Amino acid sequence: MSSTHSIAHEIRNDFGVPFTHRLLFDRDVLDPANPLVDAVFEREHDDAPPAGMIVVIDQGLADARPGIQEAISKRFFGSALPELREIILIPGGEASKNDPAIIDRILESIERHRIDRRSYVSIFGGGAVLDAAGFAASTAHRGVRIVRFASTVLSQLDAAIGVKNGVNRFEKKNFIGSFDVPVAVICDEAMLDSLDQRTWREGFSEAVKIACLQDASFFGSIADSADLIREGDLDAARPIIRRCAKMHLEHIANGGDPFERLEARPLDFGHWSAHRLESMSGFDLNHGEAVAIGICLDSTYSHLIGRLDKAAFERIIDVMTRLGLPITHPLLSDDRLIAGLEEFREHLGGRLTITLLEEIGRGVDVHEMDLDRVRDAISVLDSIAG
Amino acid sequence: MSSTHSIAHEIRNDFGVPFTHRLLFDRDVLDPANPLVDAVFEREHDDAPPAGMIVVIDQGLADARPGIQEAISKRFFGSALPELREIILIPGGEASKNDPAIIDRILESIERHRIDRRSYVSIFGGGAVLDAAGFAASTAHRGVRIVRFASTVLSQLDAAIGVKNGVNRFEKKNFIGSFDVPVAVICDEAMLDSLDQRTWREGFSEAVKIACLQDASFFGSIADSADLIREGDLDAARPIIRRCAKMHLEHIANGGDPFERLEARPLDFGHWSAHRLESMSGFDLNHGEAVAIGICLDSTYSHLIGRLDKAAFERIIDVMTRLGLPITHPLLSDDRLIAGLEEFREHLGGRLTITLLEEIGRGVDVHEMDLDRVRDAISVLDSIAG
Repeated sequence: MSSTHSIAHEIRNDFGVPFTHRLLFDRDVLDPANPLVDAVFEREHDDAPPAGMIVVIDQGLADARPGIQEAISKRFFGSALPELREIILIPGGEASKNDPAIIDRILESIERHRIDRRSYVSIFGGGAVLDAAGFAASTAHRGVRIVRFASTVLSQLDAAIGVKNGVNRFEKKNFIGSFDVPVAVICDEAMLDSLDQRTWREGFSEAVKIACLQDASFFGSIADSADLIREGDLDAARPIIRRCAKMHLEHIANGGDPFERLEARPLDFGHWSAHRLESMSGFDLNHGEAVAIGICLDSTYSHLIGRLDKAAFERIIDVMTRLGLPITHPLLSDDRLIAGLEEFREHLGGRLTITLLEEIGRGVDVHEMDLDRVRDAISVLDSIAG
Repeated sequence: MSSTHSIAHEIRNDFGVPFTHRLLFDRDVLDPANPLVDAVFEREHDDAPPAGMIVVIDQGLADARPGIQEAISKRFFGSALPELREIILIPGGEASKNDPAIIDRILESIERHRIDRRSYVSIFGGGAVLDAAGFAASTAHRGVRIVRFASTVLSQLDAAIGVKNGVNRFEKKNFIGSFDVPVAVICDEAMLDSLDQRTWREGFSEAVKIACLQDASFFGSIADSADLIREGDLDAARPIIRRCAKMHLEHIANGGDPFERLEARPLDFGHWSAHRLESMSGFDLNHGEAVAIGICLDSTYSHLIGRLDKAAFERIIDVMTRLGLPITHPLLSDDRLIAGLEEFREHLGGRLTITLLEEIGRGVDVHEMDLDRVRDAISVLDSIAG
């Protein structure tokens, strides 16, 4: 070798990893007469050995629907379906993401019941349980098959649709997680029947978010239905839930960067403060409520810096109010809120990117925020809320 | 709604996730005059905030190359490069994959030093350390940037090239893991200078494996150089290492299923018994040695069931012997070996798939093994080894 550097040699490969995402809406999918489960869990070949399955259920869902375990056992009784080997109950909400023992418990069950890469972990629950159990399942054997049965409005229109799993660590939301594509996301309307009022309502803030960012006509539809939705009208809510889920999935499938390798995530409008508010409140505020407040804050800020006109900003506040969602909170004035901006920057990776609004239906990314104007926006919201 | 099932509604999306994989060969990449590091770690935009970096080093490498920490600190001193925030030493070999505390230690460092999705975890080591530290890095923030500096023959031609991370759990190899594509894999020839004889030699069994499966002419090249390679001749080894790495990367990039969503992995020739032998020996056998034995076992079995002719089977045993690698081991006769077949089936997902040989350069997948013939193959190997 004549020179140290003459042997430098590079091979570069660009490649794509193919995924299929199925999103299914139906009612009473656990009814033995409903064929949806058969279609989702069908065997690849007749000579394939039967797959196994464990089921993870959100304790909140199990409490609200006392017969669910028996219904699952009955529905999955059949030689063409995966063999149900254990049902595990885990706490609902952020608790499921804060306790590493829950992840261990699911991993142990996967090991004990020989759940392999062709077998299933089916998860029934809201967004947090789907996130936590999905993380365990996506790391076991580098990923067993995940089917998400989304049980809340929030998960059916947003959280369950995504390709992210995650748990909290070091008191940071989603500090540990994975990207993984579930085999199917199943949205059963019957599961929404048993939601309490707060859990019903909180789901719709994510619909307002995506409408604000992408689609003024969708915003109009939400505005038209807001009073009915607030009162729990499923017929009014159904088209909103489905349209929102579809927009979310299209963004993932067609946005060009489903695993967020390239850029910050434009969907996270209103979320920098929402994440912080949730944890500062000790999770008294649920995710959807915190997002509602976060959206109002960033909409107000967008108006105060001259990006968004007054009528649009007022429409957003009005819709959120009529959905029965909060628009402000005493913790907004806590100094720790601002510290959340730094945490958000770090989670995104390096450069702060905050999405603001130029008009309803059109977001714009900025890379800094004027903290005095943020404080002004909080005052405006407090005075509107009276 | 007139009927329960009239509302069933499915949205299906097929999409690809884009990745770029860079594989670089060079010598003395830590030499301040060598520009390779600058090219790999260059900033995306001039106005981007500086990225951070932590470095994880295989203790075995640090012992063999006492100046390495200082060399890394010096090489990464410069405003255009990521800021080096901590160097962590972890045990080499399987120990790194068996101890969950090591994963925690890396995660804590990522958190403490605010390593974000634009920042780096650079890993210097052999395959096991790359697997373990890579797993931690690929789950933090759902994946920070990983750069692999492969320090052994085995990692340079195989382990570091892949897109898998993993750690052992429940005494099962790679029970927990992830698929992730490193930003770059850097193979520095200078790191091979300090390998002990066993660690040098064990790397080449993976080259024999890929040659047996895919490329008779590559097998011929290995056979021609086997004696020189056994004696540590880098000039003889270099083309073998690079060609093997390139074949491995091409399989990942062009094989259509880099994250193994669709099928069992045809590259795993000889591995069902190898994984078992490693753990049964308490890791006295290293991975490459166990793979050498596993290849000899499955080649012999392929011959005994009439798939592979005698001359081909004898050539494989001869090459392995001339590379200085073992062809059998007393633990092959332990009943626990056969139990490993079931474990392998489970890890793959459902159906057992074992790759055998039809000729050198052409593998064939089968879905069952005749255990009596496996025992015969072991006897044949024992008698050859004398």
